[in-house]
Amino acid sequence: MDTLSTKTGFIAVHVGAGYHSPSKSEEYKKACQHACQQTMKLIKEGNTAVDAVMNAIAILEDYPCTNAGIGSCLTMDGTVECDASIMDATTLGYGAVGAIKGIKNPIKVAHCLLTEENKGLLSLGRVPPCFLTGDGAYTWAKEHGIEEIHPDKMITENALSSFKKYRQKLLTCTKRDCASTGNVHKKRKTDMVCIDNELLDTVGAISIDCHGNISSAVSSGGISLKQPGRVGQAAVYGCGCWAMKLSTTSVASSTTGCGEHLLKTMLARKCVESALGSECLDQAIRKVFQCDFLDSPFLTNVHRKHGGALVLRYEHNKAELISAHTTDSMCIGYMSSSDSKPKTRISRLPETGIAGQSLAIEGLISSVG
Amino acid sequence: MDTLSTKTGFIAVHVGAGYHSPSKSEEYKKACQHACQQTMKLIKEGNTAVDAVMNAIAILEDYPCTNAGIGSCLTMDGTVECDASIMDATTLGYGAVGAIKGIKNPIKVAHCLLTEENKGLLSLGRVPPCFLTGDGAYTWAKEHGIEEIHPDKMITENALSSFKKYRQKLLTCTKRDCASTGNVHKKRKTDMVCIDNELLDTVGAISIDCHGNISSAVSSGGISLKQPGRVGQAAVYGCGCWAMKLSTTSVASSTTGCGEHLLKTMLARKCVESALGSECLDQAIRKVFQCDFLDSPFLTNVHRKHGGALVLRYEHNKAELISAHTTDSMCIGYMSSSDSKPKTRISRLPETGIAGQSLAIEGLISSVG
Repeated sequence: MDTLSTKTGFIAVHVGAGYHSPSKSEEYKKACQHACQQTMKLIKEGNTAVDAVMNAIAILEDYPCTNAGIGSCLTMDGTVECDASIMDATTLGYGAVGAIKGIKNPIKVAHCLLTEENKGLLSLGRVPPCFLTGDGAYTWAKEHGIEEIHPDKMITENALSSFKKYRQKLLTCTKRDCASTGNVHKKRKTDMVCIDNELLDTVGAISIDCHGNISSAVSSGGISLKQPGRVGQAAVYGCGCWAMKLSTTSVASSTTGCGEHLLKTMLARKCVESALGSECLDQAIRKVFQCDFLDSPFLTNVHRKHGGALVLRYEHNKAELISAHTTDSMCIGYMSSSDSKPKTRISRLPETGIAGQSLAIEGLISSVG
Repeated sequence: MDTLSTKTGFIAVHVGAGYHSPSKSEEYKKACQHACQQTMKLIKEGNTAVDAVMNAIAILEDYPCTNAGIGSCLTMDGTVECDASIMDATTLGYGAVGAIKGIKNPIKVAHCLLTEENKGLLSLGRVPPCFLTGDGAYTWAKEHGIEEIHPDKMITENALSSFKKYRQKLLTCTKRDCASTGNVHKKRKTDMVCIDNELLDTVGAISIDCHGNISSAVSSGGISLKQPGRVGQAAVYGCGCWAMKLSTTSVASSTTGCGEHLLKTMLARKCVESALGSECLDQAIRKVFQCDFLDSPFLTNVHRKHGGALVLRYEHNKAELISAHTTDSMCIGYMSSSDSKPKTRISRLPETGIAGQSLAIEGLISSVG
């Protein structure tokens, strides 16, 4: 290999904020390592940041242990419906797909929407779409040559057994609920058996390419037993991923957790804007999570707020990476072009912390080159 | 009628920013008057702002001249797919529906999502959805008792004849396009015959109830010949409507125009945030339209930016209303509880103005009581 022509860059990924059981830790770490390693090859070959994040996410979507692509949580109807989006800080191009079925890698549809948008207006002066959902998104993806898959092949045994377990609990629960209140329209009780929050494992990626461009992306199968058609933060502008540049500083973020909480707080954009306006990245993100998430006026009646974000700031060949989460744990991986292999880690709330109410934040600095 | 028990409030509506031909002006004004008058009755009876905007929008959706509900622009497949959302400044509750078919009043689904969200968690601790799309949204709406309609009954003769005309042009265009470039993947030409922008007539409403609560809502049939599944600003958080309160000041907005332009600039939220942080509403909105829309870094490669917003600021029983648009015209209606009848007006760009590049802004102040 001609090392002289090797390009520099950085890739960071996450496989969600939720609960990563110690028994599955290695599997999650392996997925992160694989995604980082393969994507770093592309970066070194001179591929763009936007292509890099798409590639990293597609690898993570293919891992059955993640709640994205194959292995996604099932809807109330027992189907897989995925959300994904991508953003490029250089062009501010954006593409998103929501509640899509039958496409192996939803992130490829979001990426294709961004690419098509860059080509300008369609015939008759029509503005190209940046956000497609459901069957229409599927048809568009097929027409644009994106790989289809039989919807049943997206369903893993694990997802199906989870679905059956909770679906059964739900039937019992709903009956009890109605019987006890006597009125389904009454304010609902909140103190019942809950679906484990291990199922919030959205995946995300942020990358810097050899030209210093930064991009981010996110992909999610959504909440277990969700209403079909439900779209979460991963497909909503400003909420799932964000990437911006200000003078010599570039920042990008990718969020994970409970879609509705992340949507209502626009957490991805908040993280980036705060990071661009602050000297200290740790302080900026800590403040966002405290003021704009845990104490957010948009989540006043929410008892437990489940969210996480991976945030990358790039300046003068220095990449500063932060993972922050209010969930039990968050698993990330990262690799600079100067690293021989990717690093991974699982951040966990301190023992005294309460999921949905406390914050864990970790950071590191890496040189890019 | 017992006038002593009459409650105070305010309602403002728009039937879009686009091109309102003088021949159709009366029809648009009539729709605005009707929506204001009927909604004011509800406000005077003590209904909430969030119910008031839902009611106003539902009336406008039923008017075949508006591009919302019945009479919406048709998709590339000749179907009607609607977007709508609603937000309440008091609870910051929010509901949105995208690309929904077969429901007479899409705004009622958004309103129902907001109402259900206020009831707290679903059984098994599931978070209620705030954003539903497509067939799943339709099923949910049906289950919640919202009126269905045969999809064909949403199609008006006008919408169908527009569809046929442009669809025919498109076929000719696409053939020519491919023949001349020899490659469909090449950067597309932008100088072809364009779809008239008369078809951007999204509808919106903002209301203040007798307790001083403020809410806003928006509903749209989207762009003519859109890709099925496409979702525009009317269903995207922060982009179609926004409503917030800061101490004694409440502000709400409802946007209209090209969905993708409004989405990428998050125009609804920008207008409200800017208005809350400024002494002069006119100046605040002028600045947003200039800096965050016409000169927006998110629309760098967009030659013509089509957008409009209705913004209402409420403080000390004084309602300040602004309409701003970069399109040829924008039609609005409004009524205070002290008015005997609604007022309407069509704001037009000055003769020297260029649609998509110039701004028209008009304001008025009304007492509420």
